[in-house]
Amino acid sequence: MDKDCIFCKILKGEIPSAKVYEDDNVYAFLDIGPVNKGHALVIPKEHHETVMDMPDELLCSLAVAAKKTCSAVMEATSADGVNLQMSNYKAAGQLVPHAHFHVIPRFEGDGFKHWAQGKYEEGEMDQYKEKIAKLFK
Amino acid sequence: MDKDCIFCKILKGEIPSAKVYEDDNVYAFLDIGPVNKGHALVIPKEHHETVMDMPDELLCSLAVAAKKTCSAVMEATSADGVNLQMSNYKAAGQLVPHAHFHVIPRFEGDGFKHWAQGKYEEGEMDQYKEKIAKLFK
Repeated sequence: MDKDCIFCKILKGEIPSAKVYEDDNVYAFLDIGPVNKGHALVIPKEHHETVMDMPDELLCSLAVAAKKTCSAVMEATSADGVNLQMSNYKAAGQLVPHAHFHVIPRFEGDGFKHWAQGKYEEGEMDQYKEKIAKLFK
Repeated sequence: MDKDCIFCKILKGEIPSAKVYEDDNVYAFLDIGPVNKGHALVIPKEHHETVMDMPDELLCSLAVAAKKTCSAVMEATSADGVNLQMSNYKAAGQLVPHAHFHVIPRFEGDGFKHWAQGKYEEGEMDQYKEKIAKLFK
């Protein structure tokens, strides 16, 4: 628990939330500012800032709960699709520094655009590949 | 394996890819159309259309590999953040019907916008909460 973290306060019941699921390690509730109605957040009960800070076992619990949340949200909202996404650090759009998956129901023609794809210059992709591949731990 | 799936063809080596990581269950490679350079895709070797179709154990392997990919991509690109996201079904922006996590390095001021948040009418959030909560399996 982090005493200044809004999600930790939700977990402690100090701030109300619309809970949709809970197990020993994970808690899921509705985002109060939904991209589409039914938009849920799935968080670990332990305070970790990003996916990279989470122990593997806890991450597994979170991923399985996120999968269940995707199914429940899609069914409840009769959605045509669902986005599962986590922003890590402020530059990636993370607003609350407690790791959370967004589960966003999507509908044909709802108008939300995905980011444009760029391209690599000749030979550049190989340089990135080499640089990234050697950093796996 | 699905014979018409482009990712299964990559896994079989029929289509080349810039591999950055591989283990028994998971394969990670660079997206040829990166949102930012270093953008990687993390996929299960078994063909499953969405996160909801994946067995829990495989999903755990995928999530742990995705976490490692986030770290490696951030470090290699000196990124300020990283987005981890999966689009499930076409309405959610899924272009290849073989489950895949996008790992997108992000930089302060790179200009990619997140979707606007909406709001619930009075009492509406509770209705969604009740409807979703009872559908967890």
